[in-house]
Amino acid sequence: MNNEKIPYKIYLTENEMPKAWYNLRADMSKKPAPLLNPGTHRPMTASELSGVFCEELVAQELDNDTPYFEIPEEIRDFYKMYRPAPLIRAYCLEKKLSTPAKIYYKFEGNNTSGSHKLNSAIAQAYYAKKQGLNGVTTETGAGQWGTALSMACSYLSLDCKVYMVKCSYEQKPFRREVMRTYGASVTPSPSMETEVGRKILAEHPGTTGSLGCAISEAVETAVSSDGYRYVLGSVLNQVLLHQSIIGLETKTALDKYGIKPDIIIGCAGGGSNLGGLIAPFMGEKLRGEADYRIIAVEPASCPSFTRGVYAYDFCDTGMVCPLARMYTLGSDFIPSANHSGGLRYHGMSSTLSELYHQGLMEAVSVKQTEVFEAAEYFAKVEGILPAPESSHAIRVAIDEAVRCTETGEEKTIVFGLTGTGYFDMMAYEKFHDGKMDDYVPTDEELALYRSRLPKVE
Amino acid sequence: MNNEKIPYKIYLTENEMPKAWYNLRADMSKKPAPLLNPGTHRPMTASELSGVFCEELVAQELDNDTPYFEIPEEIRDFYKMYRPAPLIRAYCLEKKLSTPAKIYYKFEGNNTSGSHKLNSAIAQAYYAKKQGLNGVTTETGAGQWGTALSMACSYLSLDCKVYMVKCSYEQKPFRREVMRTYGASVTPSPSMETEVGRKILAEHPGTTGSLGCAISEAVETAVSSDGYRYVLGSVLNQVLLHQSIIGLETKTALDKYGIKPDIIIGCAGGGSNLGGLIAPFMGEKLRGEADYRIIAVEPASCPSFTRGVYAYDFCDTGMVCPLARMYTLGSDFIPSANHSGGLRYHGMSSTLSELYHQGLMEAVSVKQTEVFEAAEYFAKVEGILPAPESSHAIRVAIDEAVRCTETGEEKTIVFGLTGTGYFDMMAYEKFHDGKMDDYVPTDEELALYRSRLPKVE
Repeated sequence: MNNEKIPYKIYLTENEMPKAWYNLRADMSKKPAPLLNPGTHRPMTASELSGVFCEELVAQELDNDTPYFEIPEEIRDFYKMYRPAPLIRAYCLEKKLSTPAKIYYKFEGNNTSGSHKLNSAIAQAYYAKKQGLNGVTTETGAGQWGTALSMACSYLSLDCKVYMVKCSYEQKPFRREVMRTYGASVTPSPSMETEVGRKILAEHPGTTGSLGCAISEAVETAVSSDGYRYVLGSVLNQVLLHQSIIGLETKTALDKYGIKPDIIIGCAGGGSNLGGLIAPFMGEKLRGEADYRIIAVEPASCPSFTRGVYAYDFCDTGMVCPLARMYTLGSDFIPSANHSGGLRYHGMSSTLSELYHQGLMEAVSVKQTEVFEAAEYFAKVEGILPAPESSHAIRVAIDEAVRCTETGEEKTIVFGLTGTGYFDMMAYEKFHDGKMDDYVPTDEELALYRSRLPKVE
Repeated sequence: MNNEKIPYKIYLTENEMPKAWYNLRADMSKKPAPLLNPGTHRPMTASELSGVFCEELVAQELDNDTPYFEIPEEIRDFYKMYRPAPLIRAYCLEKKLSTPAKIYYKFEGNNTSGSHKLNSAIAQAYYAKKQGLNGVTTETGAGQWGTALSMACSYLSLDCKVYMVKCSYEQKPFRREVMRTYGASVTPSPSMETEVGRKILAEHPGTTGSLGCAISEAVETAVSSDGYRYVLGSVLNQVLLHQSIIGLETKTALDKYGIKPDIIIGCAGGGSNLGGLIAPFMGEKLRGEADYRIIAVEPASCPSFTRGVYAYDFCDTGMVCPLARMYTLGSDFIPSANHSGGLRYHGMSSTLSELYHQGLMEAVSVKQTEVFEAAEYFAKVEGILPAPESSHAIRVAIDEAVRCTETGEEKTIVFGLTGTGYFDMMAYEKFHDGKMDDYVPTDEELALYRSRLPKVE
């Protein structure tokens, strides 16, 4: 333990940076449920999955036992370009809230993709390159993942085809332009390029697209193109594995100064950031070495943990992907068009779903105007304009800190600040102009989507 | 000297961070020419200037002798929120260029204002607050300075009125929205709010504005409002003083690893970044302790150093500001509407002008398509999407590194990466679409503007 005053920002040295990813599943006594073949309902085999994903990624996806995977040196070199991410003590926020709580945030936004997504993008691109592939396909919603992947592919000279949810493609031309700078091809989804896209357009001519639909198009393109595989920026076990770098760095930084968090908070869409941030802490919890309150924060307009069911469901709208057992709202659920806060996936990582199901973590949902209030407050006090996604975690971190002000408890709160909001100013504008509503799905709506879940024994 | 391998990124510890700004003028045997009263042509006195600027800033502006100014603790606390800025070894760029040169860049873009401008914004806001003022006024072009100032004012609860050059106001709604997030009022310039704005609009009804014109409006508003002063993000001596933090951090980081640069490169608009970056190095040069090649890079479309004259000129279009002796193109010079690269001020810091005049630094001008080529190349290789302004320095750093490849010289190059290009994607789009031209002003045009320079004995 280091006894000097804790700096505003803790940066690890290169020597202190993690050299292996941590696989949380290895410490789970009850493992997450396996992916199922959508036709046979039998567990997907490595050979079935390797038509869609690179071989080494399939191995990572299916491995529930190996606790650590060495990070290849090439990936660690790339990480050095934008990592370590700082762990920041929110002194200004604490002071403004007059809270006895100590607040830390792990800031993943200091890179051009603007978020933590780059951690897995480079890993997935690396294994595709290593396998001698020509390129990869993917989908992107708000655009962070697509941007991250195009950066990684450009670095490795790999082709990159991105299907971007049509409404984002139109509303976020600048993210599209960043991807173009990195040489990616970006297609608005649904498109006429794929069978599934044409089918969806025929059935819903005016649709502005959804993540589930863009996934279907990207998968179809990958399996029907020579030397291509599909990559995904969240939900999957392999993604949580790569994102464990967030939690490992955080824990190393905290341990260096002898700090033990009481509460760990992360926003949750598909679970990539949350799963990465909490990984080593949850590991300790699973091994009975320590205890932490772990809180997932999701939008009230897309509440898979708090109002979904734990069941097998399709990962995509076109039903071409394997089935995953997860907290889900139903694969054709799409949040209200007025929803600006990201985190709009209908399901949730099966690993996190299983942990939540076992009562090892909590979940809360927050309304978007409350999220943007927290975002603006944070921007003014801490000087970083946060992404709407990240602001879900900020909201709950502030709420917990205020609770400490009331009770006088000196809790240590750590939250994940996944990214910056520089490409989300239209949402901020809507908020400033009072044009943002707090629509949440009704019980009837949710029941309807739930009734369409696949029947799995 | 530290013998371990030089890390990718050198971050100073809090203890190593500079506690005083360095005033380059103190080491100049021939001082920069004084500001003149535009009516009498006599040197501006402190009392004349204090109607426009805060008192302590006036003192800093006029002080050619004090070498160091202590940085107040409140400002150092604010600096800790986003500083130290990393000094990054461009290993990937070096490798890609197969150059024996060692390239370092000081990256000032890791903050929400997206550039180095915040370093002076917080200082100027702090002194305004300390003087008990209600608020400050300013102008902004591309918006970095306005954003930085609104962040600083929000932090100190100071009112902030920004006049934003009309074409930027319309083309960069997101920057405007960031300023709004920080509570600033933003008015497109020229406006009907000021006498000078109304006059300019009457004479040029269709004008999309200029920096010089927005300065005039901001100054008029400051002097005619109770408890307001005007602040400026570049050009002035006080700004160079505050920006010396860039160079001081850079030098401390280099000294820590025993690195001595051969070439120091910075982009130059009004001179704030360049003046700050080179300050301690130029100081050594002036004192005869070391020698460096120092290169200012400016756009070919606004070439004040390379094609301007060294003369007294107005700092603004409305001619309400003092006269400054500087390299200038004439106060009503406006670069071509097709110019996307920032750095569009007609003049140049008088301190830098005097140093250039004495032959202590070089200047080169670069065309904007060459600048964007360098920007895109750098984004791909180093993973940071640079601001167009910063990319001027990248262009010349690459050119110098390529020269080393040819000659085999192992030079050490340091350049200033002033900011990120996240709010400049329209310019990148223009570049990708092949819609960017390389118009440069003709000799006849420049002669016309030059003929309108004020006559000063």
